[in-house]
Amino acid sequence: MPAITYELIKTCKQTGARLGKVHTPHGSFETPIFMPVGTLATVKTMSPEELEQMNAKIILSNTYHLWLRPGEDIIQEAGGLHKFMNWDGAILTDSGGFQVFSLSDLRQIEEEGVHFRNHISGEKLFLSPEKAMHIQNALGSDIMMAFDECPPYPAEHKYMKDSVERTSRWAERCLEAHNRTDVQGLFGIVQGGEYEDLRRQSAKDLTSMDFAGYAVGGLSVGEPKDVMNRVLDFTTPLLPTDKARYLMGVGSPDSLIDGAIRGIDMFDCVLPTRIARNGTCMTSQGRLVVRNAKYARDFSPIDPNCDCHTCKNYSRAYIRHLVKANETFGFRLTTYHNLHFLLKLMEQVREAIREDRLGDFREAFFEQYGFNKPNAKNF
Amino acid sequence: MPAITYELIKTCKQTGARLGKVHTPHGSFETPIFMPVGTLATVKTMSPEELEQMNAKIILSNTYHLWLRPGEDIIQEAGGLHKFMNWDGAILTDSGGFQVFSLSDLRQIEEEGVHFRNHISGEKLFLSPEKAMHIQNALGSDIMMAFDECPPYPAEHKYMKDSVERTSRWAERCLEAHNRTDVQGLFGIVQGGEYEDLRRQSAKDLTSMDFAGYAVGGLSVGEPKDVMNRVLDFTTPLLPTDKARYLMGVGSPDSLIDGAIRGIDMFDCVLPTRIARNGTCMTSQGRLVVRNAKYARDFSPIDPNCDCHTCKNYSRAYIRHLVKANETFGFRLTTYHNLHFLLKLMEQVREAIREDRLGDFREAFFEQYGFNKPNAKNF
Repeated sequence: MPAITYELIKTCKQTGARLGKVHTPHGSFETPIFMPVGTLATVKTMSPEELEQMNAKIILSNTYHLWLRPGEDIIQEAGGLHKFMNWDGAILTDSGGFQVFSLSDLRQIEEEGVHFRNHISGEKLFLSPEKAMHIQNALGSDIMMAFDECPPYPAEHKYMKDSVERTSRWAERCLEAHNRTDVQGLFGIVQGGEYEDLRRQSAKDLTSMDFAGYAVGGLSVGEPKDVMNRVLDFTTPLLPTDKARYLMGVGSPDSLIDGAIRGIDMFDCVLPTRIARNGTCMTSQGRLVVRNAKYARDFSPIDPNCDCHTCKNYSRAYIRHLVKANETFGFRLTTYHNLHFLLKLMEQVREAIREDRLGDFREAFFEQYGFNKPNAKNF
Repeated sequence: MPAITYELIKTCKQTGARLGKVHTPHGSFETPIFMPVGTLATVKTMSPEELEQMNAKIILSNTYHLWLRPGEDIIQEAGGLHKFMNWDGAILTDSGGFQVFSLSDLRQIEEEGVHFRNHISGEKLFLSPEKAMHIQNALGSDIMMAFDECPPYPAEHKYMKDSVERTSRWAERCLEAHNRTDVQGLFGIVQGGEYEDLRRQSAKDLTSMDFAGYAVGGLSVGEPKDVMNRVLDFTTPLLPTDKARYLMGVGSPDSLIDGAIRGIDMFDCVLPTRIARNGTCMTSQGRLVVRNAKYARDFSPIDPNCDCHTCKNYSRAYIRHLVKANETFGFRLTTYHNLHFLLKLMEQVREAIREDRLGDFREAFFEQYGFNKPNAKNF
């Protein structure tokens, strides 16, 4: 029995979106699902109990960050990432590839791997498929990601083709190096940018190998939303129906719904937690910047339609006061609300799939949220 | 029936320490007690639920800070401080006097009150007994403090005498201005520095007025610990036995015990929360700086003898990692632990008074904590 399996429950007759279930060594969860990001073995400002309370089933942690701090050896000695951070739900770790390409300096890509400088200390480091597997095996995440190259947007066809081919060769090496297949599943990452032929080539290469699931990478890197949707339109049909599909780095409410409609099962993004620490909240009426002066005497909740702990107990005026004074508790309250909002949204998406009405749900949600307005200020 | 009453349960035969009970409109609590400080209507990093979980019964908030941000009018509109911050336990507010003297610039003391500059905006402000009462009445705290002058240490006898006399005149004006006596009690503050005659004069003046309780002010402002203890030795006997006694700004474990032995019932201090945000923890074996490299692979709890949520679930290695990476959750864990430590210590102190063995408890605690060692690194 593989560590990670996917069970397709049903397909929405109105949209083609998938309702499914992913089974992991740390519990099962229904999909489509949103995964809060806990970069450094903590979802910023939150406790594991709060994540549980908001019904998070799986979180994401970053291999690159944990490799640098505190080091995967310390986490391994602690008994793995779950034990280290006191989180008994499922964990997905990325491969470190994205951070190497987005955070580090002076990177040099070779067939063997990537040389670069640590973004904190400036120290010279090297990451390869083998090293990325070694670190993730030490962390003990339920779902590991293959080490890939994530090229910038836009990238030329020639560059992208070379990159896709290298990513496929690296994928094979990842499968080879992964040595805890009994308790950890490895996902491959389909790249290819906006080029249909390259997405096709990447998907063909990777689906010929035995991955536990497939991610669509290289999106949400600056391209317009219609490009993302178009790429998903021609990419997800290339993926097997009996394995989970994960759209990396996507967390705006509209893209979560549009991704689900295109057959995506899993999503992650720092968006809800990052904007929360700036005092910006996602609400059923669109986004709300609680710092604004107009909320100084507003004693209503962040979102009157929300039943989260923050909205049941605290006012916009109080949260504004805390955020303005840079008080941690304010960021706890906004973070809790935003994560709850996305987790609840995905629950509604699953319900809509179950009832074959995700298209209707999308229309109503976009209308209420303001995504349909011209020049809507989205995320 | 006054808003705040004190009930003496018993006196420790070994030390003279008092076991008592304070009744407030937001619940009763046994004394001696420690009050966590929630300067800006939040105990930094903590939620009200966490404070409840650690058995905090009363917290302190700062009038000066809330006056400036968000403004007492907003809190009043919210329905008072308890409702604003979602805390249903008791609240004590200081008068703003201490902050005017410690934080502000260019202060000018007159009979009418104090002119000074806001430490954030530089704006010119004026605080007087009447203003301090007005703000605290708007905040709606259970226990209010009289507006006093808190002179620096050391201060000359002549200066201190003038100050004590002015503080007594201000105390009368506070009693006069306080207009919510049905739901808020007002404490007077005995000043006089290290001078016995002035403490006597101050206590005589204030106990001739009808305050709901009495604080000993002007200590823990830089004087050696034996000076503090000597001042308490001759000051607390001057206070009525049927009202609560509050030693302001004291929170180191040794001083809490030594204060209780000298008849003090209530304490507050930012120490446990402030050092927590620097990664320093109070433990049964003395203080522990969890940032230190030696804890990088230490998977034991902060304090093996502690049963708090932090110690039951998280290791030194994990907390060190979070604190080093400046992750909020690390400061939540250390703050929770330190507050729990002091609240538990006071529970043990009350138990020891009940059993007439606070002297023995002091000796054993000082020995284990290391306070008895020469050059002990205390707080």
